[in-house]
Amino acid sequence: MISDLNSITSNLSKRMSKSAIRELLKLTKRKDIISFAGGLPAPDSFPVNQVKELSNLVLEEEGTIALQYGLTEGDDLLREELVKRYKKEGASLEKENLVITTSSQQALDFLGKIFLNPKDKVVVGLPSYLGALQAFGVYGPEFVGISFDESGMRSDVLEEKLSEMKKNGEKPKFIYIIPDFQNPAGITMPEKRRLEIIEIAKKYEVLIVEDSPYRELRFEGKSQKTMFQLDNEGNVITLGTFSKIFAPGFRIGWVLANEEIIDKFVTIKQSSDLCTSPFVQKIAAKYIEKGYFDENLKKIISMYKEKRDIMLNALKEFMPKEVSWTLPEGGLFLFVTLPNNMDARELFDVAIKKNVAFVIGEIFHCDGSGKNTIRLYFSFASKEDNKEGIKRLASAIKEML
Amino acid sequence: MISDLNSITSNLSKRMSKSAIRELLKLTKRKDIISFAGGLPAPDSFPVNQVKELSNLVLEEEGTIALQYGLTEGDDLLREELVKRYKKEGASLEKENLVITTSSQQALDFLGKIFLNPKDKVVVGLPSYLGALQAFGVYGPEFVGISFDESGMRSDVLEEKLSEMKKNGEKPKFIYIIPDFQNPAGITMPEKRRLEIIEIAKKYEVLIVEDSPYRELRFEGKSQKTMFQLDNEGNVITLGTFSKIFAPGFRIGWVLANEEIIDKFVTIKQSSDLCTSPFVQKIAAKYIEKGYFDENLKKIISMYKEKRDIMLNALKEFMPKEVSWTLPEGGLFLFVTLPNNMDARELFDVAIKKNVAFVIGEIFHCDGSGKNTIRLYFSFASKEDNKEGIKRLASAIKEML
Repeated sequence: MISDLNSITSNLSKRMSKSAIRELLKLTKRKDIISFAGGLPAPDSFPVNQVKELSNLVLEEEGTIALQYGLTEGDDLLREELVKRYKKEGASLEKENLVITTSSQQALDFLGKIFLNPKDKVVVGLPSYLGALQAFGVYGPEFVGISFDESGMRSDVLEEKLSEMKKNGEKPKFIYIIPDFQNPAGITMPEKRRLEIIEIAKKYEVLIVEDSPYRELRFEGKSQKTMFQLDNEGNVITLGTFSKIFAPGFRIGWVLANEEIIDKFVTIKQSSDLCTSPFVQKIAAKYIEKGYFDENLKKIISMYKEKRDIMLNALKEFMPKEVSWTLPEGGLFLFVTLPNNMDARELFDVAIKKNVAFVIGEIFHCDGSGKNTIRLYFSFASKEDNKEGIKRLASAIKEML
Repeated sequence: MISDLNSITSNLSKRMSKSAIRELLKLTKRKDIISFAGGLPAPDSFPVNQVKELSNLVLEEEGTIALQYGLTEGDDLLREELVKRYKKEGASLEKENLVITTSSQQALDFLGKIFLNPKDKVVVGLPSYLGALQAFGVYGPEFVGISFDESGMRSDVLEEKLSEMKKNGEKPKFIYIIPDFQNPAGITMPEKRRLEIIEIAKKYEVLIVEDSPYRELRFEGKSQKTMFQLDNEGNVITLGTFSKIFAPGFRIGWVLANEEIIDKFVTIKQSSDLCTSPFVQKIAAKYIEKGYFDENLKKIISMYKEKRDIMLNALKEFMPKEVSWTLPEGGLFLFVTLPNNMDARELFDVAIKKNVAFVIGEIFHCDGSGKNTIRLYFSFASKEDNKEGIKRLASAIKEML
């Protein structure tokens, strides 16, 4: 038997590590713990009966096609239905600008695989989505973190960085942005900031990756145009997914981009998994076509909005004045800033003893900053738990003060 | 807009090319063509009604779990049912030795990702499965091709190669073998050869990858023990899939290996797609649990056996004496050797004019050999077409002689 497996693994493999967050999440699965660590959409948001109706329909109408290999690009009807939605918003695109992926995580992995050599630069927010940092990280890039203000990634800092890099003959492969209800910050980027960043990206000839899994979960305020639509010159790659707005168990995501980039995704998908399950794609396509998607979205939005409101009220009621938090207009989480010197890791231990859990904000910061921040996921716990959990968390923070 | 996309793509991406076979397959989709190029299982082998029954059952019994994120390792029941099958054959393994993948193609990609740095050596058969050559190829290895005899990969040539490599301080990362009804050769490796190769692999401390998608499709003769079972020391990684024996549209594959290697697969899967759809996994698990799998397997086997017999009879009836072919005891295809100087690419053009198609054997040879070989897929075409197609092909060959 191979005595030392690590002596024969690849450089790619050596850069992979089991998600730190995953190990933390294990802790939070104890029954007595109220977990805001989350990541899971609320199970009562899943349209089980409609999926049943539609899976029967798909099997009756086109069973042998649903169970056969499918096109690498994705199911035709699903692509058409998705394109229709973006067009309705005013975006200009065709079916050829969209490829289905086996979850949005696959699209993140493909971005790394398509663009990144070791030492390449990738611009990300401070903070940014951990799953993306990990997916890109496998390919060995160096992250360039850009700080946030209340509108999200700062365009002035971005321009400064890119200009500095240019002087050194460097250029990032892409700028990774989550413009809507950002993970983990919960911030939405206003149109003005989107346009500024698009201009800067164009000036320095850098691609933008717009990751937008929560976009349709808007509770209030005006929906922002996608950066894909605002750019309209093929400079933006947009990722979408059904995981937070329909069913993560379907593992369906998609990518919008110019045709040349879509072609790269299709080529890579051929050797990665050939195609995404046509069976689940066809159910999803009919789910949109029949109007169930929009109908349920309204229910999910009102369910999550109520939970957010409960959490915001509880934060106001229980938190000491040294603590602040973001006010997300939608999505699944909000971001809390603890007093300057408080270490969220230490708080985690205290909180677990009080049977409440969260995710420490540091792991979303590629530069190791954000030690006094935490992410709270408000959409999974019950309404009662949302309030009780914040009460416990506040008591843990007070204990630390 | 980025003016030259290829200037910013990764080395990995530059090694990817759209499958040559895929472009050829497009040609073969003309309605008037009888295609033995194939790759698709026969649609009438799909148990549409049972899938309907089971998807209803899954949604009724555990709908919200089926539509939620699942474990990266795979659905518990599915893993248990698969382990049970291998145990019944006498293999020694536990659930911890098995991980579910989103198709067997994903497992092939993961093998490349986990083990291969550019220039690493990988041993493959002459011929070997194109999809594996492509999946591994992305990671830039050098293939070491080992010739075949009627028992599959030659152990004497393998030993010679490994010994030669050892003298140069080299060692392949793994030996890739398809022991049952090999793709494309249709040859099954007898136990003696399996044991010889396992011994050699142990001696040189090289992993064996046993890819066995067709194993359960045996028409006659004695089932061979898996190399996983014969080795029993953690030196063999075995890949399985439902694509040829249940439904490719489910995109479910699996990997058997020692726990340390399974752990690598789980880690890589986290950043690649988090988990395979729990919905389709649960349907598949119940499909085995309820005995439908074994019941249908018998039907598929008898369906495919009949088609193979028709093709073998037609070959005997119509082919000129200069042509020979393999006699597969199961699986989906057989391999034809044309007269020495006949170029299969030229034959392809003649054959297409006569409305029959196949896959040229050269693409399965990492060293560019096999120019006078072709693969015939006997399981997709109807019985009538199987006979008529061989008649047309024989006439094309005679024209070339």
